[in-house]
Amino acid sequence: MGCSSCFWGILKATFYPSPKCRILLSMHLTLAHVAPRTRDEFDAAIRRYLARCSPFVTTDAQLFKSEEALLTWIDRQHGRTPVIPVLLDSRGRQMTSGVFADWLGARRNEGAQNIVFAIGPADGWSAPTRERAQLLLSLGPFTLAHTLARLVMAEQLYRAVTILSGHPYHSGH
Amino acid sequence: MGCSSCFWGILKATFYPSPKCRILLSMHLTLAHVAPRTRDEFDAAIRRYLARCSPFVTTDAQLFKSEEALLTWIDRQHGRTPVIPVLLDSRGRQMTSGVFADWLGARRNEGAQNIVFAIGPADGWSAPTRERAQLLLSLGPFTLAHTLARLVMAEQLYRAVTILSGHPYHSGH
Repeated sequence: MGCSSCFWGILKATFYPSPKCRILLSMHLTLAHVAPRTRDEFDAAIRRYLARCSPFVTTDAQLFKSEEALLTWIDRQHGRTPVIPVLLDSRGRQMTSGVFADWLGARRNEGAQNIVFAIGPADGWSAPTRERAQLLLSLGPFTLAHTLARLVMAEQLYRAVTILSGHPYHSGH
Repeated sequence: MGCSSCFWGILKATFYPSPKCRILLSMHLTLAHVAPRTRDEFDAAIRRYLARCSPFVTTDAQLFKSEEALLTWIDRQHGRTPVIPVLLDSRGRQMTSGVFADWLGARRNEGAQNIVFAIGPADGWSAPTRERAQLLLSLGPFTLAHTLARLVMAEQLYRAVTILSGHPYHSGH
């Protein structure tokens, strides 16, 4: 049932996901960030990557003015479905795209419904917020601009769901 | 003579680089990539990052249809000023932004005039091309889309030259 790497295979996998793809649909992924302003240079590109995830999982993007606002929002979500907070942190765990997809797949298999990937303020997360994380994730040793970290994370989310669903996006690069 | 972190300090450092900044101006950095097509989603943003380098170093972006075209171009440049080829490769050396800036600063101190940072074709560099590299550089464990790798590399070049010149861009994040 694997998707072929030809044009029609990609088209079919995108609009008619295989049964393997549909398993993913029970998860919801949120790309959150803490920033003082709403303007973001790569916002349109980030939303495009999230929209491309839609055949596999539902996604949304959230902006918070402060860490406290993010934590309050997570607590409120918890009342509905438990949230797995993943905080992006330079001291976090580095992994390849394949290992990250495996991590996401393991959460799916455990029945996780709501995962939040959050990019912190410019001066990093406070210790109490960091303790709330189920995973501290690093995008690599390079320091990236806030907006660029969001863009890279959005692409990694798309890459991970395509890996899990057998879509040829990852192998095509 | 260090740039202050206030608004006027940033403005002054950008438009009136200190003597320390001017030392960098003898280097030329090229961001090259091998791709079959000219259209690139983040081309405007990449050129903006390269343009922001202009108070510190001269830069340009080059597109090559094939590895052979890139090697021919490097050989032709060699006739004028020796070129240091840096190839982006997933098996390459990973470094923090600070260590990368140190590497660039060391090349400047050795009198390097022309450094090419090249992003390879989708299926990676061939072994003969890889042997030509003075540095194999990895952007981190995550696999990035070709255009995103270019964008991250452009930002790292800007970040490195600002670190070397005491501009507050890196510390501001």
